[in-house]
Amino acid sequence: MKKVKAIVYVRLKDEVLDPQGKTIALAMENMGYKEFGAVRSGRFFELECDSFPELQNRIDEICTKLLSNPVIETYRVEMVS
Amino acid sequence: MKKVKAIVYVRLKDEVLDPQGKTIALAMENMGYKEFGAVRSGRFFELECDSFPELQNRIDEICTKLLSNPVIETYRVEMVS
Repeated sequence: MKKVKAIVYVRLKDEVLDPQGKTIALAMENMGYKEFGAVRSGRFFELECDSFPELQNRIDEICTKLLSNPVIETYRVEMVS
Repeated sequence: MKKVKAIVYVRLKDEVLDPQGKTIALAMENMGYKEFGAVRSGRFFELECDSFPELQNRIDEICTKLLSNPVIETYRVEMVS
């Protein structure tokens, strides 16, 4: 069975405050990097898996149940073969 | 000045153990998702910035000084306009 890699990117929704991003933006300003504006942070997960027909649905299930909090976060999935 | 977004992806080097990824892989197995193998985790940061000639070097500097630990982590930068 063909092996693929699914990369799941999880980030806070735009309307949700991101204290980690704010802190990084402040640190960058204090370090003299004035050309930069807002910073948003997120996480990603690389899942190794077999390629099978239901894969996309299965990954959506894992994302909503385990990898993200759908109330405040969004995710997108990228498949790499 | 043109606004661009730089997305910095930071992940542990392949030879460095990733306990968070291991835990997620275990949780997935316990939840019945048997088709999946190893999981690796990482973080990303979206930096809003002006486009200027030295931008790439500046971002490399920020990555090594602030956003990643070059001893155990690697990063890659994606520019989105």
